[in-house]
Formats: sequence, C-alpha cells, structure tokens
Amino acid sequence: MSLNIASDTPLGRVARAPENFLSRQDVAFVNRAGADDRRAFFKKAFAAAAAATLAGARPMQAIAAEGDPAILNLPEHTRGLGLPVAARPYGMPSQFEQNLQRRESPGLTRVSAASVSFCPLQGLFGIITPSGLHFERHHQGWWDIDPSQHRLMINGLVKTPMVFTVDELMRMESVSRIHFIECGANSGMEWANVAVPTVQYTHGMLSCSEFTGVPLIKVLEYCGVDLKKGRYILAEGADGSSMTRTIPMELVESGEVLLAYGQNGEMLRPENGYPLRLVVPGVQGVSWVKYLRRIEVGDQPWATKDEAIHYVDLMPDGTHRQYTSIQECKSVITTPSGGQRLLNPGFYNITGLAWSGRGKIKAVDVSVDGGKTWATAQLQTPVLDKSLTRFSLPWVWKGQDVILQSRAMDSTGYVQPSYRTLRAKRGDKSIYHNNAIQSWRVDAGGEVHNVHVG
Amino acid sequence: MSLNIASDTPLGRVARAPENFLSRQDVAFVNRAGADDRRAFFKKAFAAAAAATLAGARPMQAIAAEGDPAILNLPEHTRGLGLPVAARPYGMPSQFEQNLQRRESPGLTRVSAASVSFCPLQGLFGIITPSGLHFERHHQGWWDIDPSQHRLMINGLVKTPMVFTVDELMRMESVSRIHFIECGANSGMEWANVAVPTVQYTHGMLSCSEFTGVPLIKVLEYCGVDLKKGRYILAEGADGSSMTRTIPMELVESGEVLLAYGQNGEMLRPENGYPLRLVVPGVQGVSWVKYLRRIEVGDQPWATKDEAIHYVDLMPDGTHRQYTSIQECKSVITTPSGGQRLLNPGFYNITGLAWSGRGKIKAVDVSVDGGKTWATAQLQTPVLDKSLTRFSLPWVWKGQDVILQSRAMDSTGYVQPSYRTLRAKRGDKSIYHNNAIQSWRVDAGGEVHNVHVG
Repeated sequence: MSLNIASDTPLGRVARAPENFLSRQDVAFVNRAGADDRRAFFKKAFAAAAAATLAGARPMQAIAAEGDPAILNLPEHTRGLGLPVAARPYGMPSQFEQNLQRRESPGLTRVSAASVSFCPLQGLFGIITPSGLHFERHHQGWWDIDPSQHRLMINGLVKTPMVFTVDELMRMESVSRIHFIECGANSGMEWANVAVPTVQYTHGMLSCSEFTGVPLIKVLEYCGVDLKKGRYILAEGADGSSMTRTIPMELVESGEVLLAYGQNGEMLRPENGYPLRLVVPGVQGVSWVKYLRRIEVGDQPWATKDEAIHYVDLMPDGTHRQYTSIQECKSVITTPSGGQRLLNPGFYNITGLAWSGRGKIKAVDVSVDGGKTWATAQLQTPVLDKSLTRFSLPWVWKGQDVILQSRAMDSTGYVQPSYRTLRAKRGDKSIYHNNAIQSWRVDAGGEVHNVHVG
Repeated sequence: MSLNIASDTPLGRVARAPENFLSRQDVAFVNRAGADDRRAFFKKAFAAAAAATLAGARPMQAIAAEGDPAILNLPEHTRGLGLPVAARPYGMPSQFEQNLQRRESPGLTRVSAASVSFCPLQGLFGIITPSGLHFERHHQGWWDIDPSQHRLMINGLVKTPMVFTVDELMRMESVSRIHFIECGANSGMEWANVAVPTVQYTHGMLSCSEFTGVPLIKVLEYCGVDLKKGRYILAEGADGSSMTRTIPMELVESGEVLLAYGQNGEMLRPENGYPLRLVVPGVQGVSWVKYLRRIEVGDQPWATKDEAIHYVDLMPDGTHRQYTSIQECKSVITTPSGGQRLLNPGFYNITGLAWSGRGKIKAVDVSVDGGKTWATAQLQTPVLDKSLTRFSLPWVWKGQDVILQSRAMDSTGYVQPSYRTLRAKRGDKSIYHNNAIQSWRVDAGGEVHNVHVG
C-alpha cells in the first residue's frame, strides 16, 4: 500500500530551499504572536505556593485564616437569575477562552487566501478537535457554497458517468468514523531549524473529527466502475484553485475513502469543504479535496500541478519524492510545550498526541532527559485506526533544565525517527512529511523552548 | 448498582399529573415551531424523479440533454478568490444550516431561565454532538463564570477538607471519555400522549460528548476520604438554583465520575457548566451538577429538594420512585422521524441512536411494520460504554402506510420496553425515565407522525 514513488524527473527548480520556507523576520512575528497557551498554562495555580502534587490547593483551615475573596464574597451568579435557554441557538465558548483560537502565520504565504491557520493544540483535550478550531489550509480562499447548487460528477472508467446532488448522496447508506487529518507540510518549518516557538505553529496543521459520509466505492460501483483498468481516481475541488489529486484505487476499495458531508455530528464547516469533501484516512490533507465536485476514474496517476510541482520533496540524490501521501507515525507533547512556563517545581501531567496513517498507535514512549531513557506513556482508550491518540505520563519537575520528547510506534511496528535519522535519509531540501521526534527544552526558569536535539 | 429506592413517604401533592406537564395550547405551539428537519429532509432530492436507490441522480447524457444550471454556469466560487484563513478565528456552521439549532419549547416551564432547549437530533450524524447544539437544562439560568474566581470545596467525611482552583484541578492527571448525557425527563411528554411532533422535542434532552477531567475519587483520596463511612457524596452547584444531588460512592469508586472541565476537546461551554461540572456516566443529567462548587462526603442520602420534591415519580401504589438515577436502555429513530416527509417511494437509510446507562449497546432491532417483525440494525463502531451508539438499516419504502420502531438491548441483556409494558409498571403519573419504544408513522403521503402504539 506504499505510495512512496520517487519521481524520475528532477524538478529542482520548483523546490524551495527550507531556509526560504519561512523567513527569519516572519519567524520573529510568529514568536510574538504565538505565546498563547493552555489558559496561561494554569498560571494562577502556579503562582501560588508550591506543594508536591497540587501547588496551590489549601486546607480549609488555611482559607479561614487567610481569607479568599472568591469564597467569602457571594458572587452574582449565586444570587441572581441567569440567562435563558436558547439565548444562543448555536452556542459559543466562554468569553474567558477567547485566546484559544486558530492563528495564521503571516509571511508563510503571499496572500492569506492561500495560506494556513494553525490549530491551538496546546489548549485542547482528548482527541476530538472542536470544529471551530479545526486548522485551515486554503489554496484560493474559502467559500460558503449553497448545497442545493452543488453537484458531484463521476466520470472516466465507469459504465455510466453520473451527476449527484448533495441530497442524493445524503440519502444513501452512510458511515461515521473518527480520523485525523494532517497537512503534508505540518512541521515543515522544523526542517529548517527555524524553531517556531509553540506547538500550535510546529504541529497545528493537524485535527481530528468524527466524519460522516458515503464510502466512495459504493458510488463508483453504482456508476459501474471498471476496477480492472481503473486503478486510480482523480479528485477535483470546485474552488478557484482547481485542486486535483490522484488517489490509488486500492485505498478506495478498502471502503475507507468517504464522500463526506458530516463532521463532528453536523454538516462540514465552510472552511473545511462544505458541503462535500473527500476523506482519505491516513493520507495527507491535500488529498482530502474540499468542495469536491468531480471524481474521475483512470488507469494511471495524473501528475497534476498539485502533485508534480507542489507536494514533492527534493532528495539528496537529485530525484523527487512524489505521491508521498501516507502520513507516517508521529507524536508531539502538547503540554508542557513551547511558549508555556512551569512556574514552580512539582507535579505535571505530560500529555500529547500520537497518530499514524498506517493504522493504530501501539505505544508512545516519553523521555524527560533528551532521549537517554524512556518511559511508557498511558494511552487514552479507545485507540482508533488512523485517529489521534492521546497519551499522558505523570512527572515531577525538580526545577532542573530538561529536554522532553515523545516517540510513537504504530501497529506496523514502525517507530517515529529522530531528526538525525530523518535528515540522513531525506537531506536538507525537504518541506513535507517531517515526522521526526519533537524536543521541548524546559529551562531552569521553567520556560519551554522548541529545540532540535538528537 | 441499582439506585431504584421507592420512597416510603407518599408525596402526591408535589407530583404533577402528566396532563399538566405540557398544556394542549403549548403543544400546538411546539407543533408549529418544530417542523425543522434534516436539511428539509433532502427535499430537493426527493422532489426529483424516482429511482430504486437514488431518486434524482442522473446520467450525464441526461444532463447534456436537459441542462443543469448548477453545472453549466460556472459559479462564482470557481472563478474568484475566496475568504482568507482565520477570517473567523473560531469557526461557525454554514449560513445554509441556520435552521439546525437548539430550540425551546415555550410553555414547558414558567420562565425561560428555568427551562430546556432541545438538541436537533433529526439533523445530526454519528455520535458526537456539536457543543453549540448540546441541549440545555437550566434551573436558574446560565452564567459565564470567571474560572479564576471559581473554587471547588471538598468537605464532610474527609481527613482534610480542601479548596481547589480550576487551574489546580487541570494540573492533575486527567482522562477523556465519550459519554451520553440525558435529562431524566427526556421523552417525559410522551407519557401524556401529547405526541409532540419531532424527535427534537420527544428525545432532544440528549447529547454525547468527549468529556475531560479528573476522576473524583483521586481528589477525594487526596483529601483523605473515609470510604467506610462515607458511602454517598453531595454535589452542589454555584448558580442560584442551589442544585444539590446525592450520588452513591460506589459510582465514584468505579473511577467513572469526573470533575470535568473539558468537552469535545475544549473547555466546557458556559451553558453546560463552565468552568467545572460533574460527569456521572449513565446517570440522569440533573446529577451532572454544573458550575460545581462543592462535594460533601456523607453516610446517607441527603433527600435534597431536587431529589425529594423534584425528580420523583408517583407510582400506582401511592409510593414514589426516588433516586432513580440510572438512564435505562433506550433508542430512537432520528431519520425518518416526526415532521419529516418522504417525498417519493424508494431507498431510505433508517438511522437513529441507542444508549444505556448500564453499559454498552449490544443490539438494536428495527421494525417497519409496527413491531410485528424485526430486523437487526447495523451498529457504528466503536460501540462505547455509556455512550450513544448510531444504528442504521437500509430500507425501501413502497409508498404504504407504515410504523417505524427501534428496540435496543444493552450488555446486561435488558431490552427496551414497549409503552404498554412500561405503563403497566409505572401507571399514568410518571414524568421521568420514560425509555419506551418510540413509534413513527409514515402515512401513504410520506408524512411522518409521532404515534403511540404497542
């Protein structure tokens, strides 16, 4: 099922050197904008006195002696009548959580309509990404398309080319599955050692949702697909970028590729392809074509602009990695992570995310000494196929300078590589598919930094 | 683990007869307001010509002959530049989905600050409820409480009574689990044969989220809980309703009861208890105390106002069912459901939700002939403990008058009862814990109605 086909045609002229992927000046901007954290990383708790496991928790005797305005003054919400039901027919987060938002990295691209907004992984829990915080990657901006005017065409190597409305697709048998989606360029800036400061910018082109839709294979069969000759499909979006991607038919035949209209229980969000997108579990996000309007069945890859000029990596031997679609096993610690600050020694729950485009996460190891020793993290259940998996490890920080790392292994036995290993294989010209181990340095002052070690 | 303790003290004066639960006039209002559906139940597809499985899908030859403006005219989004990334730092649904919202049932209570808004189950997919559409039940209105000013007190039969900030709780080891929450009064109106028209109003006090928090038992142990004497806890909310509920310690000891701050990846929504609520999997929603400010450990149930005057049911023998907390196994078909209309004969994917407060869903049967014969529905995986489970069954409607029903069985072997069975046991004075089989009648014109049969 490997899609790693090294191109025979060197295309050096179109590959951007990593040092140009994000300028130093842009990095400085991101540094300033990126210091949002997990509710200021519990700063109020950490500002309080130290204790072994719970920094500021106080016995009630102490409260009685010292006083605590939050307890001793009866708050308004205990005395008054609150807001009515359906005050917001569609609810929103608390006003106190406004800092948790998806953020652009200005300078990453020339225009914001062809750019990325990053998901604030440092502030999220569990495995489901709130749809309002799902990362965005647009090639020609996003649209809120009227679903009654949208159509999906199936053509190519099928007996009866057909056109479907969204309603017709929604009437068919559907499935719902929880899967991650990751941009192939996620962590791409890390190749260049630019060390953007927070996990939102290093790994935030990553989200996970419960997707609902019709297995594409069912619709192809309805059109009389020729599975003998038709070993590839082309997926085409309706927006101005004319996004087109080749996908091997074997992925479609597995039943995993969906014509999806649902995300986290409701219709897709406009920024994520409403009313129809392709879901290609395990494969990089660019293949999950948004505003999907056409599927063509063919007998060979198309080598479209978005798979011949973009989304290729120049290798040390001068060839290009092309059709490198599967997102290999990867993990990252989200708390503590870059930009956060440990305000006092004591207990911390190290937690993060692991995922693999090839199956389930089998294990995650965590190191608090820069990779010299590793401890096995606990995995949140259920561990699902091609989904984010939350891991955690209890840890007591003694105030020393430490390097935190996580290393994931998937159900195929593949182990997430170090930067050194990955660079030795890929050279220094890659942009995509960086799945190396991420290192966070906690300095003696408690500040957490993005560093490259090992 | 049964909590069904029949009270020895008849409290007939506080029990409202079912006919007063919702007046005929109020039902009329709900009838008018409740006809929203699943994007008009695919009305455009159904208005098209009939076919066996895909009503309106057309071969391309037909398109070429008949024309289709949506294809032949190049839409604006194919020609122009769309909106930039992070145009909405926190995203919202499409403008075309505004009809899908939580809705109040005016007249159900005297003021909207002490009422319910219902979740639009008819328009949802999978098992995750979007947080913006989560049902609401407020007893004294909702608040957006400043988390830095919120405290949780642990007192009663513990060695060291303590006070915690939200940040301190967030610093501890946490877990994330997907669970349903259902109000004990969900489907309560159905006892009275009032037949509200849509599944949003019959079953919409039901939602399902990935909750994140600290197992309460860990915090109690930290305070030195006396588990020998302390066999109950009291949970108290900070809002003006002074919501207090007794919960048996055995549920806490199981590790399932959480001090939760997270919901679907982000912090709880204000309407759902931000910044802290109790999560009591399998138990009715009123015990999931919102704006949680205190846990007291005691040696017997408290019989508070919300468990002695409210949330009790008058039984035929004059006693009351009290502390009836566990939500028994239940299911409902959400599509097709009341208020929707099948515009032509042909294929339909019957789908709905099943759940049990006692464990996992083992099987769901679906009948399309009013319970004479049953077919086994397909269950969406993974099937999780005390979570919603999505079921579906393909079906071809031939245009006849039919009754659709679903019947769930849980991992204990318990089977969802018929109305007749449940009424025979509970009499006609109950408000809470109606888990009877729901029937939808599809008339020969395709209109779907709420009916009581069997």
